[in-house]
Amino acid sequence: MSILPEPPYYAVIFTTVHSDNNTGYAQTAEQMEQLAATQPGYLGLESASNGSEGITISYWQDEDSIRSWKANADHKSAQQAGQNKWYKSYITRVAKVERQYSFGLED
Amino acid sequence: MSILPEPPYYAVIFTTVHSDNNTGYAQTAEQMEQLAATQPGYLGLESASNGSEGITISYWQDEDSIRSWKANADHKSAQQAGQNKWYKSYITRVAKVERQYSFGLED
Repeated sequence: MSILPEPPYYAVIFTTVHSDNNTGYAQTAEQMEQLAATQPGYLGLESASNGSEGITISYWQDEDSIRSWKANADHKSAQQAGQNKWYKSYITRVAKVERQYSFGLED
Repeated sequence: MSILPEPPYYAVIFTTVHSDNNTGYAQTAEQMEQLAATQPGYLGLESASNGSEGITISYWQDEDSIRSWKANADHKSAQQAGQNKWYKSYITRVAKVERQYSFGLED
């Protein structure tokens, strides 16, 4: 939660509505979080869900690192499985973080 | 969840860590969601939480509408209460949505 690089950087906002089929979802989601963290330009990730609705935000240094992650073969396979099985619908938004404020963080 | 205006528009990403004091929180959060929805330039809101960590994203037409909402008197009072009582820490990020993809939406 205390991911706070200096702007500008990028946020990929992934909001999802899950289907009734969660077979294999948790394992793949965990694998994708771990894989994302090894990619060039990765800055951090925040995730939360309310029942069938979820929000995952990943943070990236620049547009190139987002494009590379989107094209990663294992990630593409997971995206396909997400469309086939786990998600009823989703929206992916690519947004440039221009400024930020924080309260109560140590640093 | 199916909030999908045409980019560019703005996202305010509000990630929070709650304190142990939730007195009055739910009521104020509900009031602020309703009040935000009446503000000029408001486009929508998505919210989810995992235990003490929360993510709320509000969407806005432009920077001016974000600044006006930030300065709203009732909202400022709620922000102050949040710092005094409900939040251990938070980060507010203002980000410009540049592009988006969706899957499975009716529209």
